Amino acid sequence: MGYVASLDLVAAARAGHTRAIARLLTRAESGVAEARPALDAMFAHAGRAHVVGITGVPGSGKSTLVALVAAAIRKQGRTVAIVAIDPSSPFSGGAILGDRIRMGELGGDPGVFVRSMATRGALGGLARGTLEAVDVLDASGFDVVMIETVGVGQDEVDVARAAHTTVVVSAPGLGDDIQAIKAGVLEIADIHVVSKCDKPDANRTIADLKSMLILDLANRPGWKPPVLPTSAATGEGVDALVAAVDAHRAALEQSGEIATRRALIDERRLLKASEELLRDRFERARDGRVASLLAAMAARELSPHAAATRLLAALPQGETA
Amino acid sequence: MGYVASLDLVAAARAGHTRAIARLLTRAESGVAEARPALDAMFAHAGRAHVVGITGVPGSGKSTLVALVAAAIRKQGRTVAIVAIDPSSPFSGGAILGDRIRMGELGGDPGVFVRSMATRGALGGLARGTLEAVDVLDASGFDVVMIETVGVGQDEVDVARAAHTTVVVSAPGLGDDIQAIKAGVLEIADIHVVSKCDKPDANRTIADLKSMLILDLANRPGWKPPVLPTSAATGEGVDALVAAVDAHRAALEQSGEIATRRALIDERRLLKASEELLRDRFERARDGRVASLLAAMAARELSPHAAATRLLAALPQGETA
Repeated sequence: MGYVASLDLVAAARAGHTRAIARLLTRAESGVAEARPALDAMFAHAGRAHVVGITGVPGSGKSTLVALVAAAIRKQGRTVAIVAIDPSSPFSGGAILGDRIRMGELGGDPGVFVRSMATRGALGGLARGTLEAVDVLDASGFDVVMIETVGVGQDEVDVARAAHTTVVVSAPGLGDDIQAIKAGVLEIADIHVVSKCDKPDANRTIADLKSMLILDLANRPGWKPPVLPTSAATGEGVDALVAAVDAHRAALEQSGEIATRRALIDERRLLKASEELLRDRFERARDGRVASLLAAMAARELSPHAAATRLLAALPQGETA
Repeated sequence: MGYVASLDLVAAARAGHTRAIARLLTRAESGVAEARPALDAMFAHAGRAHVVGITGVPGSGKSTLVALVAAAIRKQGRTVAIVAIDPSSPFSGGAILGDRIRMGELGGDPGVFVRSMATRGALGGLARGTLEAVDVLDASGFDVVMIETVGVGQDEVDVARAAHTTVVVSAPGLGDDIQAIKAGVLEIADIHVVSKCDKPDANRTIADLKSMLILDLANRPGWKPPVLPTSAATGEGVDALVAAVDAHRAALEQSGEIATRRALIDERRLLKASEELLRDRFERARDGRVASLLAAMAARELSPHAAATRLLAALPQGETA
């Protein structure tokens, strides 16, 4: 599809046409050069939505929570889009929640949009094109765009840097081993959620979280991340979570910190986009400059660092993507 | 410390002096420019060691296993070095195993070297300088260099690409949620280990793994990844694991596949080193070109991709690191 047709797609998406939005999301995921004009146009029109990252280990119940939060936001009359990046996410199947909310219940409503994106190599991490997908949904007029990620590894940090508000979901009974993985995540949360608060050991999880936060909170000016109990079974705490997400956004606006967040997001995106370009150019130089440098490395004549220094000076600058 | 003194350090490390090795490892981790000549020299002398990656989720018992394998290799008269990259690794404390093997038991032996490396942001991932640390230990004459990583996220793939032989450790009773995280890891294993095989549900874990592997194995020529039961409590299976690691190396040599592995490792290292250089240059251009591009992004005049394209053409090529 050519440039003009791409821009027709942009106009259609911005007018809220679901099929146009879906096609632009597919382009964001593909990363092909032909997708650029439309994605760049959507970026130009984005910036209004509240971007909320929700992260938690598999089994923490975050997908359920995301669906409940989406329904609650919708009931308030606001529109909401979800980008789910989780190999185990039930969004990629059909039913969102099994019993409580079915895909169809949200799916027939044009004020809700759900998109599941593949991860790199099924090992988690923000999928390529995730943030461009957020641009597409933002510029299509959704009030809130939620990014759901599996809560292990580097992707929490990535989602925190890509979202205005980051929610970290913990669950009782997942075991110390899993909680240990999450230790590094606590500091990036704007809001903590303890899911499954109807379970008997939920109070201990809440108390553990609060005690871990005390030292952190004492030293942090401004917003104090709350710890909110929720239950997918009873619906408890979902409205309070929506209120906390809104309160966090309001606090960012009032303190002026929203500008700092936006700047961090832009900086992160510029670096990531630069890394992607580097990889593209590496691929294109594979049979040429890259091959000769690899031969020198194999002969132990050049270290990886020395070879990389030469490569960056010699990479083709011409743009195809 | 200047260039000449650095090369003295190289000579001392290659002669097996523990303190020189430790200092070079610190330099590898630091990534500072002054470290380059010595690290490049160690790369030039590396390439003899068998590099073994051992990966598994926290709670899988991989640290215990690594210590037992190291002791078994040592008993055969070979030397062994361990690079542990796991925020929860007991190597970073003092005792390796609690009861069974204490740091001191291996620690007094110059034929064993253990180094714990910090992860980026405590969220896992191969630490910067990990592969240069492997170079240092390799060029210092250790027969086997083991890299221990926490088994979640992208780092399994990274370790697989950095090691000649990759061991993936599974444990019974960790729950389906955790096993789901690991699904993407199965394909990178040269050897599967089921730890804690003295536990009652170990047989189910072994059977599950084998059934998952059947389809994969049918289509894979050459080496068939075995599934080995081990027990830290009884020591069962440790010698069999050492034998399998050696058999895998022998198979790589016989089939000639070792050359393919080495080429993949070099390619990965060249790309990683290029990305690190890009980040260094990004930092140096932060107040200049980067700032003006970020201003254009904030005004929605340039998309991240468009800004990145301009940045890569304009980055300072001068080398400081």
